[in-house]
Amino acid sequence: MTSESEHPALRRLRAAMHDAGHAALVALSQDNVTYAAGFLVPSHLTNRFRRTIVVLAGDSFACQIVVNVEEIQARARSRFTDIRPYNQFTEDPANLLADALIEAGVDTGRIAIELDFMPAVDYIQLRKRLPSAEFVGCADLFFRTRMIKSDEEIATLRRVGTLSERVIGEVLGEVKIGMTEIDVARQLVDRLIAGGSSNFKYRVGSGANSSITNCGTTAKKIEAGDLIRIEVLGDVDNYRSNVTRTAVAGTATERQQRIWAALMGARDTCKMMLKPGTAVADVYRTYVRICREHDIEPTLKFLGHGIGQTIHEEPYLTDTRDIVFAPNITFTMEPLYMIPGEMGFHVEDMYVITADGFDAITGNLCSNDELIPVG
Amino acid sequence: MTSESEHPALRRLRAAMHDAGHAALVALSQDNVTYAAGFLVPSHLTNRFRRTIVVLAGDSFACQIVVNVEEIQARARSRFTDIRPYNQFTEDPANLLADALIEAGVDTGRIAIELDFMPAVDYIQLRKRLPSAEFVGCADLFFRTRMIKSDEEIATLRRVGTLSERVIGEVLGEVKIGMTEIDVARQLVDRLIAGGSSNFKYRVGSGANSSITNCGTTAKKIEAGDLIRIEVLGDVDNYRSNVTRTAVAGTATERQQRIWAALMGARDTCKMMLKPGTAVADVYRTYVRICREHDIEPTLKFLGHGIGQTIHEEPYLTDTRDIVFAPNITFTMEPLYMIPGEMGFHVEDMYVITADGFDAITGNLCSNDELIPVG
Repeated sequence: MTSESEHPALRRLRAAMHDAGHAALVALSQDNVTYAAGFLVPSHLTNRFRRTIVVLAGDSFACQIVVNVEEIQARARSRFTDIRPYNQFTEDPANLLADALIEAGVDTGRIAIELDFMPAVDYIQLRKRLPSAEFVGCADLFFRTRMIKSDEEIATLRRVGTLSERVIGEVLGEVKIGMTEIDVARQLVDRLIAGGSSNFKYRVGSGANSSITNCGTTAKKIEAGDLIRIEVLGDVDNYRSNVTRTAVAGTATERQQRIWAALMGARDTCKMMLKPGTAVADVYRTYVRICREHDIEPTLKFLGHGIGQTIHEEPYLTDTRDIVFAPNITFTMEPLYMIPGEMGFHVEDMYVITADGFDAITGNLCSNDELIPVG
Repeated sequence: MTSESEHPALRRLRAAMHDAGHAALVALSQDNVTYAAGFLVPSHLTNRFRRTIVVLAGDSFACQIVVNVEEIQARARSRFTDIRPYNQFTEDPANLLADALIEAGVDTGRIAIELDFMPAVDYIQLRKRLPSAEFVGCADLFFRTRMIKSDEEIATLRRVGTLSERVIGEVLGEVKIGMTEIDVARQLVDRLIAGGSSNFKYRVGSGANSSITNCGTTAKKIEAGDLIRIEVLGDVDNYRSNVTRTAVAGTATERQQRIWAALMGARDTCKMMLKPGTAVADVYRTYVRICREHDIEPTLKFLGHGIGQTIHEEPYLTDTRDIVFAPNITFTMEPLYMIPGEMGFHVEDMYVITADGFDAITGNLCSNDELIPVG
């Protein structure tokens, strides 16, 4: 395989590798391997002992190392044609990686590798095998490459975002007082699977449970006056959604309405800033400032996060990031305010930066401008 | 907290740490952290950038490091009372870990830490902060401690195993020719959620799709003559099941019956070996020998695997392991034979070794001694 015939994602990664002066680029994490290979090795989801590794080097070297159990699927579905299987019980994948780097002729060069994911034991073994190589991290390289989506990636994000929002809206239409959180989850999951999602997560929290950011879904019954928070972390073709709605069983209290209006006002002001050239840190600071003007201290130290093949990626919308918006960056904004033990307010939608502004990937099917009345 | 008042799981880990002469024991992986803390930090499932770390040292030091987003849940649900939150954007959890080890007075000692999971970047930082410490892996320590289950753990494994087998049996009773794999998955998942599972995986494969070991679930319709393979990787209270059944739409062919009978015969011979004192390698060798006598070359290089807080743990039933069965070891046996592109044969049940034999955790509700006729 020459670089000319490579998939655009691989060409982008190889170009970033060359630009940074690296001799090779190596990924081991589920998200970066899937981004490169174009398919999710199932073992990556369930078994941390089965390493999957992709290697790019020089102008044309490319290979993928997989556990032998996944060899057939990798040969059928991966963008890599050079598939190197190993026996998980008798072979060390770090040795296959070292062999590949030696074969590619980069064993004395600078190798960019996922130090933020690679297990230390693999790092130690690789250094032993390649004592003259220099190893540097590549978290930033991957994130900056993945942050700017292709039109095809954005189309997939629209599919999964739209599915997720539609499903939440349909389920909220069915919620009745007396149903349990698990009852709600069954409706939610059934529709997600019917819509083609399989590797999703979800959260349904009511009453005090809604105030736990990453709550479990329990047998608690929904009672009049409860806030009900539904969050979907969906997937379609390895791209993720993150959509959240907050509903109220019955009628919102004056206090609930006031808090919600403050959060919506902060969000809507931030929306007006979504365009190329805006610093994500400024959006976050604006959000925090407006919330505080309404005596609300945001629970999270970020307003949102990039979204793509992982639920959370760059750009995080915080004042700790120096990223400036550019076209085709996809992300969420998720105003979130928890009153622990009492109730939680949370809305989350997906956005994409366009040439001169933004487009709301979600927010068009199930409005949460008001707390959604159910029951 | 003194060690006398610690939870039995922590006491077992601390004893194993002392027996091995380690000054401290540190876990970072989802399964080992959950085993120690008694609760699953939700971020461990969705966000690899949010480290969760538990530290045991000396006779009484114990703390858990969590991302601030999870602080409230950790304080409410963890077995650790010393909870140390960090900001994921401004603090490095490896520094909190170094601080804890210094505070515990073990910074010049031998620290057992999950080198097979810990990201290299954390290892590099920790070595920088604690240049006089010695770091060694602890995969074996954790697996040998976790391998022998308590009665409470076995009871939880029975609950999740029974749920999984019951659900598969009920769903197979509903399968009709013309349904899609996704239709079957919807029935499966609805019942799993209703039964209290939430963090499950599943596989439904029919026809040629059944021959892919870790197949995806597709919109393919079930046709007469298809083999249908349903695998559930369930969870209840952080313990996992792994149960698989193979059905046939209509009537099994003579060839299918012959292959199945050979696999069942091999499995049943292995069952007779399940008791304290049997080497797992001998069970695997017996399985392979009998399969080969019937001209079947097993697709997997293991017959089964330990099961507990992870789907796959020790003991793997292979000839690469020197483990000998002892009471309260829980594991699966999963005869599996794939004819790529055509069909897959696979049955998986959960077992526990008792004082003088074994008990079948599953296999009592939905027999697969024959290919299950459906449709």
